[in-house]
Amino acid sequence: MSRPLLQVALDHLSLTEALKTTRVLASEVDVLEGGTILCYAEGAPRVVSTLRALYPDHIILADLKAADAGTVVARQVFEQGATWMTVICSAPYATMEAAKRVADEYDGDIQVELYGDWTFEHAQQWRKIGLTQAIYHRGRDAQAAGQKWGDEDLSKIRKLSEMGFGVSVTGGLNPEDLSLFKGIPVRCFIAGRSLSEADDPVAVAAAFHTEIERYW
Amino acid sequence: MSRPLLQVALDHLSLTEALKTTRVLASEVDVLEGGTILCYAEGAPRVVSTLRALYPDHIILADLKAADAGTVVARQVFEQGATWMTVICSAPYATMEAAKRVADEYDGDIQVELYGDWTFEHAQQWRKIGLTQAIYHRGRDAQAAGQKWGDEDLSKIRKLSEMGFGVSVTGGLNPEDLSLFKGIPVRCFIAGRSLSEADDPVAVAAAFHTEIERYW
Repeated sequence: MSRPLLQVALDHLSLTEALKTTRVLASEVDVLEGGTILCYAEGAPRVVSTLRALYPDHIILADLKAADAGTVVARQVFEQGATWMTVICSAPYATMEAAKRVADEYDGDIQVELYGDWTFEHAQQWRKIGLTQAIYHRGRDAQAAGQKWGDEDLSKIRKLSEMGFGVSVTGGLNPEDLSLFKGIPVRCFIAGRSLSEADDPVAVAAAFHTEIERYW
Repeated sequence: MSRPLLQVALDHLSLTEALKTTRVLASEVDVLEGGTILCYAEGAPRVVSTLRALYPDHIILADLKAADAGTVVARQVFEQGATWMTVICSAPYATMEAAKRVADEYDGDIQVELYGDWTFEHAQQWRKIGLTQAIYHRGRDAQAAGQKWGDEDLSKIRKLSEMGFGVSVTGGLNPEDLSLFKGIPVRCFIAGRSLSEADDPVAVAAAFHTEIERYW
């Protein structure tokens, strides 16, 4: 089982603020995520091209949650150096396929972002059209509404993983949560504000790595 | 039954290109939509604030298809003068509610964008949390894959309408399609490329209005 990667979600309201985070944290993480909020704030091509210029060797994810116009939206970010891009789980399969074709041209990849009432029948279709990555989370708002990680989450993540998905996990994750996912080949642990707004972000990143090395 | 409005979707790759369309078409339409593609290309606050500055009396819609972080995403556009914003149907209810609270502060409104396998049970929940607008469409990619308007679409639109939703309709609409929706209190007919890429956009807009006046 390869070790999970650490991903920081840059959900700042400006690129300037996001870069204050990457200056401190980039060397501590594997994946830099241009978050939806940041991409809407500054424009996705600008976010991706800036991150790519500064961090040529990182995995750069554009979290666009694309629901339609897969080709056009994917070109906006893969042309600028994105490695991965997200589509929303309720997107038509045709949109996912269109985005995947563009990703393939750039040796990139597409991740399906799981919100709402997706089903394993949908997941089978996603595998059938060649998708191999999914993002499982408690949404920011669901989390604020008090929803916790539970056995149901873990069993869904395990099942997706058995279906051949590299599953990334997110939603208010702290280092102490990682032990919950022991035994599951998580692709990336994604942390946003728990990393970027920490008093000592580097120490929190190190704590994530300690837990990853302990359990994987 | 109030007459359906005409909405142009600005899905250009730059604001400059979008403004070439609004210069010609703004006086012919009721709603200017800052499309997802355009908002990702240029930044949503910039798109909305520019449209608001130029067109103080239009309904301006930010088609963000928000899936999470409802408060933050909604503030990005309502603070700049948006009238309406979209959320994706698979967004958690908490996200929709958060976005709606911000919209209410600005006398704005939220529209639920219907993609994938949403159900009428979901729709009942949306009503319960106070949402009264939905957007029904054939997606751009589904449309490219040959999917046509059918009886199933019409009966779903009718049912949503009976549930109390003002339903906007989109997806490769041409003026001659409008007669299909006769008898349904459609909120807006949304046209993108069929208007903005027409040889004579004003004539096409006029043809939409002729059909709207004929059937509503």
